Amino acid sequence: MKLNNIFLSFLLTLRASMASAQQPVDYVDPFIGTTNFSVCNPGAVLPHGLMSVVPFNVMGSDLNQYDKDGRWWSAPYEYNNKFFTGFAHVTMSGVGCPELGTLLTMPTTGRLDVDYRNYGSEYRDEQATPGYYALTLKKYGVRAETSATLRSAIERYTFPKGRANILLNVGDGLSNESGGMVRRVSDTEIEGFRLLGTFCYNAQAVFPIYFVMRVNKRPQTAGYWKKQPKFTGVKAQWDKDNGRYKLYESYNREMAGNEVGYYFSYDCQEGEQIEVRMGVSFVSTANARENLDAEQQGLSFADIRQKARQTWEETLNRVTVEGGTEAQKRVFYTALYHSQLHPNILQDVNGQYPEMENGRTGHTTGNRYTVFSLWDTYRNVAQLETLLYPDRQLDMVRSMIAMYKEWGWMPKWELFGRETWTMEGDPAIPFIADTYLRGLRDFDITAAYEAFSRSANLPGKDNKMRPDIDPYLSKGYVPMGVYAADESGDNSVSHALEYYIADYALSRLAKALGKEADARKYYARSLGYKHYYSKESGTLRPLMKDGSFLSPFNPEAGADFSNAPGFHEGSAWNYTFCVPYDVKRLARLMGGDRKFVNKLQMVFDKGLYDPANEPDIAYPYLFSYFKGEEWRTQKEVSRLLAKYFTDKPDGIPGNDDCGTMSAWAIFSMMGLYPDCPGSPHYTLTTPTFDRITLHLDKRYYPQGDLVIETRRSAPDQVTIKKMTLGGKPLNSYRVNHNELMKGKKLIIEM
Amino acid sequence: MKLNNIFLSFLLTLRASMASAQQPVDYVDPFIGTTNFSVCNPGAVLPHGLMSVVPFNVMGSDLNQYDKDGRWWSAPYEYNNKFFTGFAHVTMSGVGCPELGTLLTMPTTGRLDVDYRNYGSEYRDEQATPGYYALTLKKYGVRAETSATLRSAIERYTFPKGRANILLNVGDGLSNESGGMVRRVSDTEIEGFRLLGTFCYNAQAVFPIYFVMRVNKRPQTAGYWKKQPKFTGVKAQWDKDNGRYKLYESYNREMAGNEVGYYFSYDCQEGEQIEVRMGVSFVSTANARENLDAEQQGLSFADIRQKARQTWEETLNRVTVEGGTEAQKRVFYTALYHSQLHPNILQDVNGQYPEMENGRTGHTTGNRYTVFSLWDTYRNVAQLETLLYPDRQLDMVRSMIAMYKEWGWMPKWELFGRETWTMEGDPAIPFIADTYLRGLRDFDITAAYEAFSRSANLPGKDNKMRPDIDPYLSKGYVPMGVYAADESGDNSVSHALEYYIADYALSRLAKALGKEADARKYYARSLGYKHYYSKESGTLRPLMKDGSFLSPFNPEAGADFSNAPGFHEGSAWNYTFCVPYDVKRLARLMGGDRKFVNKLQMVFDKGLYDPANEPDIAYPYLFSYFKGEEWRTQKEVSRLLAKYFTDKPDGIPGNDDCGTMSAWAIFSMMGLYPDCPGSPHYTLTTPTFDRITLHLDKRYYPQGDLVIETRRSAPDQVTIKKMTLGGKPLNSYRVNHNELMKGKKLIIEM
Repeated sequence: MKLNNIFLSFLLTLRASMASAQQPVDYVDPFIGTTNFSVCNPGAVLPHGLMSVVPFNVMGSDLNQYDKDGRWWSAPYEYNNKFFTGFAHVTMSGVGCPELGTLLTMPTTGRLDVDYRNYGSEYRDEQATPGYYALTLKKYGVRAETSATLRSAIERYTFPKGRANILLNVGDGLSNESGGMVRRVSDTEIEGFRLLGTFCYNAQAVFPIYFVMRVNKRPQTAGYWKKQPKFTGVKAQWDKDNGRYKLYESYNREMAGNEVGYYFSYDCQEGEQIEVRMGVSFVSTANARENLDAEQQGLSFADIRQKARQTWEETLNRVTVEGGTEAQKRVFYTALYHSQLHPNILQDVNGQYPEMENGRTGHTTGNRYTVFSLWDTYRNVAQLETLLYPDRQLDMVRSMIAMYKEWGWMPKWELFGRETWTMEGDPAIPFIADTYLRGLRDFDITAAYEAFSRSANLPGKDNKMRPDIDPYLSKGYVPMGVYAADESGDNSVSHALEYYIADYALSRLAKALGKEADARKYYARSLGYKHYYSKESGTLRPLMKDGSFLSPFNPEAGADFSNAPGFHEGSAWNYTFCVPYDVKRLARLMGGDRKFVNKLQMVFDKGLYDPANEPDIAYPYLFSYFKGEEWRTQKEVSRLLAKYFTDKPDGIPGNDDCGTMSAWAIFSMMGLYPDCPGSPHYTLTTPTFDRITLHLDKRYYPQGDLVIETRRSAPDQVTIKKMTLGGKPLNSYRVNHNELMKGKKLIIEM
Repeated sequence: MKLNNIFLSFLLTLRASMASAQQPVDYVDPFIGTTNFSVCNPGAVLPHGLMSVVPFNVMGSDLNQYDKDGRWWSAPYEYNNKFFTGFAHVTMSGVGCPELGTLLTMPTTGRLDVDYRNYGSEYRDEQATPGYYALTLKKYGVRAETSATLRSAIERYTFPKGRANILLNVGDGLSNESGGMVRRVSDTEIEGFRLLGTFCYNAQAVFPIYFVMRVNKRPQTAGYWKKQPKFTGVKAQWDKDNGRYKLYESYNREMAGNEVGYYFSYDCQEGEQIEVRMGVSFVSTANARENLDAEQQGLSFADIRQKARQTWEETLNRVTVEGGTEAQKRVFYTALYHSQLHPNILQDVNGQYPEMENGRTGHTTGNRYTVFSLWDTYRNVAQLETLLYPDRQLDMVRSMIAMYKEWGWMPKWELFGRETWTMEGDPAIPFIADTYLRGLRDFDITAAYEAFSRSANLPGKDNKMRPDIDPYLSKGYVPMGVYAADESGDNSVSHALEYYIADYALSRLAKALGKEADARKYYARSLGYKHYYSKESGTLRPLMKDGSFLSPFNPEAGADFSNAPGFHEGSAWNYTFCVPYDVKRLARLMGGDRKFVNKLQMVFDKGLYDPANEPDIAYPYLFSYFKGEEWRTQKEVSRLLAKYFTDKPDGIPGNDDCGTMSAWAIFSMMGLYPDCPGSPHYTLTTPTFDRITLHLDKRYYPQGDLVIETRRSAPDQVTIKKMTLGGKPLNSYRVNHNELMKGKKLIIEM
């Protein structure tokens, strides 16, 4: 060993030991996934926190590459944008439709200007760690720091000497809904609400967010603003505020309108800090105040920031990884961070929450969750939560069952008590059935089964969940033209595939519940996918009402989330292998295992696979259903992880979809993936890390920690040679959930 | 006597006897003054009622000749318009700036349409009597009837068979302010508020109106609407409601925005009646509900209508007239009706009201009034109220003094607790001084005098009431260019003339209070008008800062409310004689009595007199200051009454100005006019009626009724030959208020 090699080795050891002193929370980089359409953000938030405080930089200036009004845009923040117009309160992470992201607070200095086009600023020195975000505004020299509790925000602004203004913009934001109200409560407190919703252009999915905002210093002056409606003609001549932002400097009762706001103005000393605190609720302003009081009473900014970090530590410490690169650890823990943002706590500190679609206020003693992007999350987020955070998963399932009791239906894409009917299928079935079959059963399965039976059997005219169920029941498939008259809106194959998956999961649940006849019925239904297989195209293919295939037909149409007949946001290739419960028989349809494997490999080789489109994300694991082909899983997963999941802002391949992309990365990096919802198994692959310890919750996994140890002689080894579980050789690459837990130690040798 | 003459005589007797069976209330025709820019309306209202329910027909269709958005327009209703878009709740009568006139309720049938351009309707069979208004909507065949209590409305809609809708439009209305909130309270009740104000484009004079609205039948469906902001560009493509009225059919929490509303829909039987009740408050929705409950509990539509009529009877029966034509009685009692609409009761049934300009809620045990158009009403409405309704006048004065205590200033043009700074001068001084000098003294004159001293003496920089007082004090006049830099906004002569009038009234008050030095000081100031007299033009004329007159100068400029330098909404001719306290010396300035009389006569003869412009409305009475010229007063007043005050919709010569035109007619028809505010006198002229009995309030006028008897041999006799008061010959045409009351009977012989 040469000297410089010795020195290098010393340095590497030192770095490793420094690194090992790092906590999992230190590996989280909230800037990962903030560009490349991943639509995550670097804001301050707690695990599943209702409140998030997020820098808003997607309006008001040509300096921004991505403008919320200039194109389809669904994130409050974009890494490459430059023009900051405030902190949004309550946002979503990784969601593809614009929503929430309102109640914008903004510090400015000098003359009061309430037009965001003018008051926005470029910034520098961004800093983000779990539960903390800060930046410095170039235009004003203001340092703005934020942190959060579950239902409240805190912001600390450090001002230069002179006039300082703190604005609350209730008018603008990401949501397409509009309209709000603000009421001055005292010199230092305001309250109000703003309408949100219309998510993915569902006009009726509307709900209010209530807020209370406080400043910790009495302002010199304060008041409202409202952008005046623009009149044309003679009326415009008389009103100097026509079409402009009007300041209401001496009005102090309620303000309402489309674009309203409130300002506090100060005469500051150099370096003077002013704090803003905001509580929110989806029930009432009184509850928003109660939330704020209960969660922040007596706590300083530093207290709240420290508490937020600690809360993240507790969540992230659930998994310890050793080996791998620093970058891989950043990817892993940031993915775990992203996976624990949604669903969100909905109930206020007093237990009240808006019930599902009925306008009433409910009460819960547990956690009531909201933001269920189930078409995405039933595939792997549910399984991740079941494995790592079973208490959370149980409350999520209980929340869904409560929704059924309140409204008569399970959620599909639920948002703050409203069903937005986004995407398709009956995703609550695989979500809950999978949880039950993995052994988490402390919930009202009778009610859940009742809900599933309704949506699986009610005729289409009464069936909100499966509106095109009639041909599905009578013919075994959904033809074109039933759900939507126009081809571009017809997602018939996608619909049916989701129903098959749901009915498969329901058949497994029925079996577990001893309902053998139901089990047979639903299982039989799940095989209806065969109708769609076209030998000619070698893919699934839309069927017409007369039973013939759609012609002409291009299986590649629909790629990159464009519209194609029969398929929703995807091509036939993104859907053709989406029959995870019947892979072997699908292979027979295709002409045998070899043809299946070759065709699947071709999908990867020709770039027909989309790593960010849910229907195909289990594809790489399907090779492992075929003896001797498992290496393809190991190779493709390793390749995809390396290519698409990095520690850079563009390190997620597309919309994170409430953690679905992140859950894919987490499972894949741990070497196991739940590729078939409703089937309590994992498919094994090459772990990224040498040793992974899952500190399982002993209330649900009494056998304790699961250790996954990988033995390799070089970091680039990806092919598994042999595996043992609990010391016994493991011959299958698919392992049952309970067996894996009981095995306690999985050793994988390359 | 020929037979046909006998028959005619019989008919006339019959008609007279039928007529005599009519009550004063039956002579009120609320359609008088609803065109010709008088801006009165035929809606249902109580004397000084906070609530008025007024047909709104000034938007939404080319069928309307006068459109609120198409020109300067200040009335909720125009007689010649045709397109009805609902009942406005809380409006003003005879006011020249657009304000209030919102919370529009509208019955429709058939498919729900919430765009007023579409849901509006032509109408027929209008009916209006004091406290009741009804029409039938041609488009829907709905009969819509309304009545009111002091603070609440009731509407009864009779629907044809089929779908019926009741709409509440919170977005549109007469006010230039916008923005509102609605909250569903139950199936049959909603509450909310709307912003009002910006009266005469005073941007800060903003206040909310709170309401509670109930229907007496549970609707089949109900929901909100909101007109969506209009996006341009890509965003517009995704939102089908972009720029349109969107229905929120399944949302039932709060709604807010610029153009929001609520609908109730029914399946009606033929002839089914549904009632709407609305309570309002300027303090809170809770108070609006309390007002509604307290004033309507247990009362049917018929009860409320009858009670409203009875309340008007009590007010109108204060004066009995005999003789004159039926048309003259209609003119008289309708004028009396119009004179008793403003100011309005402001406090809620629990005594709460919004304090003046301080944002606090006050409490009163008496009546707190609002809507003080003092530049208008100090001239004759105050005197009418002092004479006929002294209890009301006292509460009005007490309200003004309370405003001073709450805010530090007397009102100028007060509107629901906000000062709108409309018109000029210091009108609270003549208003209150006159009342005091006529003998109504049960109020805090010390506080009032303190307020007057402030506004009469504070330097301009601290003086909200007289911002250009500095030159007025130092030079005795206000030159051009002090108040407004631009000529068109300079009203310097008008300002100064008002200050002179105020200071004259203040000098009389000071004298009555034993403040001799003050009395001398203010009296001396009041003579400063002489500075403005230009021998060259023979008129008052604007002065420049160097003391020279404005040149060139056209004394006729400014007629018909156009802009002219120095004069506010008037020509020099409308202002030149506006020195009612110093007529004789003004005559000397003009070269003697003869020249004065000739010049004044010329003003009438050449059409330079404007019967609808306050500064000149006392002109016809000024002849009576000159011995032997009194016939001119009698002739001109009779002529003006006959020409401008009729029982037709155009029977008021212009803006009624909160009853100022009407008070002119009332006094003139009774044969007496208070031509000099602050001087407790009347100038006498020829009464319209043969016998007028003023049933004076014995608490304030213990001597009881005043009778004015006119003896003439033909109805067209207008020149007075002799007069007796209390049986004694009366040699002067100017009589002191107290002497007139004590005289008890004034006999005028032609």
